[in-house]
Amino acid sequence: MGKMWSGRFAESSSELLEAFNASIEFDRTLYLEDIEGSQAHARMLAAQGILTSEEAEAIVAGLEQVRREIEAGEFLFVIADEDIHMAVEKRLTEIIGEAGKKLHTARSRNDQVAFDFKLWTQRRSLELAALCRRLIATLVDLAADHSKTLMPGMTHLQHAQPINFGYHLLAYASMLVRDHDRFIDSYRRNNLSPLGCAALAGTPHPIDRQVTAKALGFDAPTLNCLDTVSDRDFALEMLFNCATAMMHLSRLSEELILWSSYEFGWISLSDRFSTGSSIMPQKKNPDVPELIRGKTGRVYGDLMGLLTVMKGLPLAYNKDMQEDKEGVFDAVKTLRNSLVIMEELLRTMTVHPDKMAAACLVGHLTATDLADYLVKKGVPFRETHHIAGRAVALAEKKGCDLSQLELSELQRIDGRIEADVFEVLKVEHSMNARRSYGATATARTEEQIEKLKVWLKERE
Amino acid sequence: MGKMWSGRFAESSSELLEAFNASIEFDRTLYLEDIEGSQAHARMLAAQGILTSEEAEAIVAGLEQVRREIEAGEFLFVIADEDIHMAVEKRLTEIIGEAGKKLHTARSRNDQVAFDFKLWTQRRSLELAALCRRLIATLVDLAADHSKTLMPGMTHLQHAQPINFGYHLLAYASMLVRDHDRFIDSYRRNNLSPLGCAALAGTPHPIDRQVTAKALGFDAPTLNCLDTVSDRDFALEMLFNCATAMMHLSRLSEELILWSSYEFGWISLSDRFSTGSSIMPQKKNPDVPELIRGKTGRVYGDLMGLLTVMKGLPLAYNKDMQEDKEGVFDAVKTLRNSLVIMEELLRTMTVHPDKMAAACLVGHLTATDLADYLVKKGVPFRETHHIAGRAVALAEKKGCDLSQLELSELQRIDGRIEADVFEVLKVEHSMNARRSYGATATARTEEQIEKLKVWLKERE
Amino acid sequence: MGKMWSGRFAESSSELLEAFNASIEFDRTLYLEDIEGSQAHARMLAAQGILTSEEAEAIVAGLEQVRREIEAGEFLFVIADEDIHMAVEKRLTEIIGEAGKKLHTARSRNDQVAFDFKLWTQRRSLELAALCRRLIATLVDLAADHSKTLMPGMTHLQHAQPINFGYHLLAYASMLVRDHDRFIDSYRRNNLSPLGCAALAGTPHPIDRQVTAKALGFDAPTLNCLDTVSDRDFALEMLFNCATAMMHLSRLSEELILWSSYEFGWISLSDRFSTGSSIMPQKKNPDVPELIRGKTGRVYGDLMGLLTVMKGLPLAYNKDMQEDKEGVFDAVKTLRNSLVIMEELLRTMTVHPDKMAAACLVGHLTATDLADYLVKKGVPFRETHHIAGRAVALAEKKGCDLSQLELSELQRIDGRIEADVFEVLKVEHSMNARRSYGATATARTEEQIEKLKVWLKERE
Amino acid sequence: MGKMWSGRFAESSSELLEAFNASIEFDRTLYLEDIEGSQAHARMLAAQGILTSEEAEAIVAGLEQVRREIEAGEFLFVIADEDIHMAVEKRLTEIIGEAGKKLHTARSRNDQVAFDFKLWTQRRSLELAALCRRLIATLVDLAADHSKTLMPGMTHLQHAQPINFGYHLLAYASMLVRDHDRFIDSYRRNNLSPLGCAALAGTPHPIDRQVTAKALGFDAPTLNCLDTVSDRDFALEMLFNCATAMMHLSRLSEELILWSSYEFGWISLSDRFSTGSSIMPQKKNPDVPELIRGKTGRVYGDLMGLLTVMKGLPLAYNKDMQEDKEGVFDAVKTLRNSLVIMEELLRTMTVHPDKMAAACLVGHLTATDLADYLVKKGVPFRETHHIAGRAVALAEKKGCDLSQLELSELQRIDGRIEADVFEVLKVEHSMNARRSYGATATARTEEQIEKLKVWLKERE
Repeated sequence: MGKMWSGRFAESSSELLEAFNASIEFDRTLYLEDIEGSQAHARMLAAQGILTSEEAEAIVAGLEQVRREIEAGEFLFVIADEDIHMAVEKRLTEIIGEAGKKLHTARSRNDQVAFDFKLWTQRRSLELAALCRRLIATLVDLAADHSKTLMPGMTHLQHAQPINFGYHLLAYASMLVRDHDRFIDSYRRNNLSPLGCAALAGTPHPIDRQVTAKALGFDAPTLNCLDTVSDRDFALEMLFNCATAMMHLSRLSEELILWSSYEFGWISLSDRFSTGSSIMPQKKNPDVPELIRGKTGRVYGDLMGLLTVMKGLPLAYNKDMQEDKEGVFDAVKTLRNSLVIMEELLRTMTVHPDKMAAACLVGHLTATDLADYLVKKGVPFRETHHIAGRAVALAEKKGCDLSQLELSELQRIDGRIEADVFEVLKVEHSMNARRSYGATATARTEEQIEKLKVWLKERE
Repeated sequence: MGKMWSGRFAESSSELLEAFNASIEFDRTLYLEDIEGSQAHARMLAAQGILTSEEAEAIVAGLEQVRREIEAGEFLFVIADEDIHMAVEKRLTEIIGEAGKKLHTARSRNDQVAFDFKLWTQRRSLELAALCRRLIATLVDLAADHSKTLMPGMTHLQHAQPINFGYHLLAYASMLVRDHDRFIDSYRRNNLSPLGCAALAGTPHPIDRQVTAKALGFDAPTLNCLDTVSDRDFALEMLFNCATAMMHLSRLSEELILWSSYEFGWISLSDRFSTGSSIMPQKKNPDVPELIRGKTGRVYGDLMGLLTVMKGLPLAYNKDMQEDKEGVFDAVKTLRNSLVIMEELLRTMTVHPDKMAAACLVGHLTATDLADYLVKKGVPFRETHHIAGRAVALAEKKGCDLSQLELSELQRIDGRIEADVFEVLKVEHSMNARRSYGATATARTEEQIEKLKVWLKERE
Repeated sequence: MGKMWSGRFAESSSELLEAFNASIEFDRTLYLEDIEGSQAHARMLAAQGILTSEEAEAIVAGLEQVRREIEAGEFLFVIADEDIHMAVEKRLTEIIGEAGKKLHTARSRNDQVAFDFKLWTQRRSLELAALCRRLIATLVDLAADHSKTLMPGMTHLQHAQPINFGYHLLAYASMLVRDHDRFIDSYRRNNLSPLGCAALAGTPHPIDRQVTAKALGFDAPTLNCLDTVSDRDFALEMLFNCATAMMHLSRLSEELILWSSYEFGWISLSDRFSTGSSIMPQKKNPDVPELIRGKTGRVYGDLMGLLTVMKGLPLAYNKDMQEDKEGVFDAVKTLRNSLVIMEELLRTMTVHPDKMAAACLVGHLTATDLADYLVKKGVPFRETHHIAGRAVALAEKKGCDLSQLELSELQRIDGRIEADVFEVLKVEHSMNARRSYGATATARTEEQIEKLKVWLKERE
Repeated sequence: MGKMWSGRFAESSSELLEAFNASIEFDRTLYLEDIEGSQAHARMLAAQGILTSEEAEAIVAGLEQVRREIEAGEFLFVIADEDIHMAVEKRLTEIIGEAGKKLHTARSRNDQVAFDFKLWTQRRSLELAALCRRLIATLVDLAADHSKTLMPGMTHLQHAQPINFGYHLLAYASMLVRDHDRFIDSYRRNNLSPLGCAALAGTPHPIDRQVTAKALGFDAPTLNCLDTVSDRDFALEMLFNCATAMMHLSRLSEELILWSSYEFGWISLSDRFSTGSSIMPQKKNPDVPELIRGKTGRVYGDLMGLLTVMKGLPLAYNKDMQEDKEGVFDAVKTLRNSLVIMEELLRTMTVHPDKMAAACLVGHLTATDLADYLVKKGVPFRETHHIAGRAVALAEKKGCDLSQLELSELQRIDGRIEADVFEVLKVEHSMNARRSYGATATARTEEQIEKLKVWLKERE
């Protein structure tokens, strides 16, 4: 048998074309969705009287065998089969004969590939959401251990106000909750089946798209077949969701790299997640967070790639759209691995609370507290901000921390400052004083931990 | 008064820095959200006993005056004010005196800008969703006019199967439904207020974040303040949502350009939406769809820009994040204008059904019908596909359409073909034969129209 | 032997890390450059007295054997070897013993990978430039066949002015000349050797970087070693050069797709470069130009990916930079295949001059000629443009081409029009009238062909 | 007079279209190039006998007046004029009457805009190259001050080997040399004039494109007019060149931010280039490097935007290409400001050599020297690397630097270590030992400074 569509062609395809044109090298990833979709399609065709039930049974059983062959590594994928759909169908026909040729009734590769790829993507959205939850759980556990561990909260990479390390970790948990919810929303919004749309216009065969949709877990069939075969929004959403999640991981990675530097020294990564240098024997490099940060680039690129592919394409299917898959496969794999490794990385790192605490005594972390102290005495904030600024300038000049100034020095700056100021200028007091909703105070941090535990519990 | 934060600085800012650093040129767009947020903040501060109610009233009224001045074009924006927050607060203090300086109690520019920008973005999500609905309504109306207008459905820009023009337009309506739902999902998912997060750690003042959240239409305050001041996911989602919608419009634009070419001649754009050439007097150019297609690039660029900005940023606020706004403003404006203009463009174009019908007689559009005809006679699809292929080859050789072959010629290819085949080979019959769910048959197209009308009605 | 750098580590790497961390899956592409670089390094070390000449000879010979093993497919690449450098060195040491361990003297993986990757990229720049020249030669040959083949020149996809098809093809030749020159300029600008920069600071060993640079075809060693190990500009340039060339090919592809549509019918692609449909027997799809157009997306994505990776990285080498290679390999492969296939596609397509000529009689292609005709009679251009516009409007109303109006009709529009206008309104006359430098007139087209032939000859 | 091309139109443009369609808001940036190009065009037309010399003189003088009006801020730009070309020509015709209408003879807006934009871009390439040289000069000066200032060279943000601060700065100088050369290469490669290409096919008028090319500094006219009016490679190159240069500045910015943190403390930015916090009185934020780092995103986005616009566009001019300018203007302005500000930022920062020196005693910076020390005693590098690794492990365990171990301790690890090792383990010795070409040794750093000074001198 030549190419399945070669009826009208005089010349055979050049090898050059074959290799350029084929997608089998990567779309074999979809083998399971292809087979399950074909099985559902065959059963529906039989129920609708388009195939006999014997034919359908033969197809379903034959496809089971194909699946086993693929999973056992016995299936020979060849470029000449072009794509996973052709490869599976050809093997099926070898196994069960004529009936295999009837499987493609009432469908086209256009709806078949949309179906396979969408089903695969939907399943990955759920899987990635689950991995987000796992990482959130680890962050929440770590946060519970560190809700009293003081560290300098930073803005502009400058010491800003004292916070606790648990609170810092919960910021990442919060990002991952959004990542999780994006995957779930995309899953829910796109959960409509393409199967039965055929080439672009539907089919004259009396098929039942509801049945095949439900059989594979879709909520319903799509509304308009022309749109369906040219829609890759679900793939773009997957890429964007992965890109945003990688962006969050890149930020956490940046901080892990900073914190493991000699200059910070706030954490040590496990030896299992560090590597050495081929030339410098003393090096212990934070390769894993560096790689995660770096891999953000490829996922951004994957997103930009598919956006470019889809721009300006006329309806309906165009071969350009064959370029939709590799980027998505790459992005999903990258995020999956990054989530798994980051979880283990965090779980195995060593935190150095003493180093973090020491850092809290640098940078006048409680300057805002001084300003707020005076606000409570009725001084307008904009004035107290200036007063605290002058106190900081004095401390800088003296080479000490703001909290180490003498009362007399402070009073020379503003007479309304009294001895009770020193309690206010303590780092721990400052951290716990911030107890507005969502704030860093240990009690508030623990409240956030509780809320996240409930959130996780509800999704178990 | 110098810079509000200049207490500790010895030298004054260079002009160079001032211009580079200031965001007032673009963030003035947020003036309304800034003022409304400040008013809610002041009222809450009074309710919590942090301000007196006289102070709060003075602030609210003063801000009303600032708003009026801005809207009347009387407000003098100067670079030296840095940003909209400083500009508004400075003017407020000029108007109401000391009380103005108390407004900034228990907040920071970090939560203020997050709040202003998020509120603005949320409002734009709703606005863009409404514009999507308007364009959907126009597409649905046009589709109702053209549910019987035959045209060649295309894949690979080659004639594939006959469809109706209404059905083709509904493919775009379906894309816009997804665009709409993405805006709504992003709105819903991000509807949490940043206000009260202060610099990064919350505030020691006894504020009530629930109150300010509810006052401006947010569902609740955000969970973790550190995350909140460094979160720009809502802006990234807006950019992605705009990019995907522009991608859809670029596809429609491409088709409008093709259809208005001499080669197609399927539509004429209104003179009001075309332009001429400075050198070629006969030209009537489809500038508007070309511009929409082209403007897709800038929105993709805006998305890539912010993704780049956010990559690898340590917590919490970094000045890099000032680069978050211009791209979002640009993308929103671009999509808004494109949706409005596209709607008018479609409404005012002239469709040429005769040209579309004539095109249906080219390209053997009913070849699949011939294959399906034989399938109904029990021939396996893979065989019928070959038979139809041979019939097409013969028609090509004769220089006629498949439907114009003699019965004897067809029978020489396959004896199972009978005289009833000619009804099947008619374009209109073919279109109406495709009546599976979501298919092109006029009845199915009208069903889709009804569903979309209900969808629109539910969202009125 | 464990990991080469494992001296200071207590725990062994997790498998998880190993797979995530390793680059051997893709950097094996660099095996040849790695081996050649190591051979040059060993010879230089011997010449400088750092190795004995026996050691160097053993290394060179051992590396030859490694090369043969790799090229014969006998080399076992394992994840545990991490990267191509380690894999080659480990095997070398197995083959030649102790001397193998001395090869890494005075270098680091940081300069080694920079060297390997840069040398590979430089070679690919030359190769891609050669493929550009080959495609230019084919375009020039085709142009020579078609310097008199009339076709409607388009702007805004609207008929604008008559040109010849050869002239149109030369536009693409001109783009490819720029692509070619960019590859050459990048090659020339980046032709400095990284070898000998070691980890980041150079080496205390008395090496001679000039020697290793020259041995592999570099002009000189780089200036500053810290820059060198963190420089990936050469890779970014390769990606940009590929992206721009793909953009050009995407434009040509778009036109080939348009021209093979039923609506245009200007060309037929060879069956060898077209594919059919799994459902529609009549389809002959321009898959290859569609794929080339689509693959533009992945190359844009590759560029954006590496730009993202490099943004904000502190000096010197960071593991993020391991993400530099796959995108470049992918972009180079994509462009290489696209150039090769496009050349064959063009060479084997059939041009339909009759269809192009017929299209020239639609759209008032000579309206500008009418305007220019009046300019020559002294009427200001802005007026003649209006006059020609009115003539076009009349022809549109009559349903004929501008050239088919009566003289009396033309004179009623402007009395200065005389009978000699009809020669001017002929399409062929119009084409040949445009004979300014670089214009479409056949003589000018042939001049361009000659210049390009000389250009090609000079680069043979 | 209505729209200049309105001859054939029945309806007037809607306001909606006008605003969407017009480019005058941004392309007025090109006023100077537009006027100079028109003056050269008019003079050439007169020399060729197409205009009288009186007409040409009137045009040249009239355009001078337009230029003065624009530069004095007296020129009224209105949306209705669409673009800068129309605006200038309309005003010219108001000033000089009929002759103004003859200016557009033998050209089109298609070649005019290509010319204006290309000339502007070429000039900016030279300007940006000059700004690169200025920043290089400052880096070289600073490097000369710091060629003996010890600092820890880093890889993976971990202390690696001792270098001097001057050497580190020269890495950035080296990047900027490449940036400079890219601008110059792009300038040189693209220095061909589009003027006279007219709409797409050249012109029948006997113009001389060489003359207008030379008049404005171009080397020659372009080869093929169809290519010329659809070519935006020069703009893409500008965007890529800006993106790469911004990437380099983002890396320097990242380091300046790190170095000004409390954890590093290696530099202090001038107060003039730092800003404070609205809430935290002690903050001194490195806003300027943060902004430069952040602005990298917008330039990446500008590049991706235009790449997207150009993808798949058929020849020749399409209105999509109007989207070519804003991104380029934005990228050029961003890089220009960033180069200027970075230069001043570096020149005014305070370096803290004591802090850098102290950091050199942390992290066993001379571990590689220990390995190299043993290599010189004949031990294979791979072994010495292990030995040094064990010494580092011991030092870590003792809590001291490698250089602070006892000789007996070192000898217990490897007996070949002798007392002379301590000289080798000194940081300064280590830095100066690295004296291969391009290495960090002060003498080599000074050599690099000399080379760069010569390079700068040659380009003065």
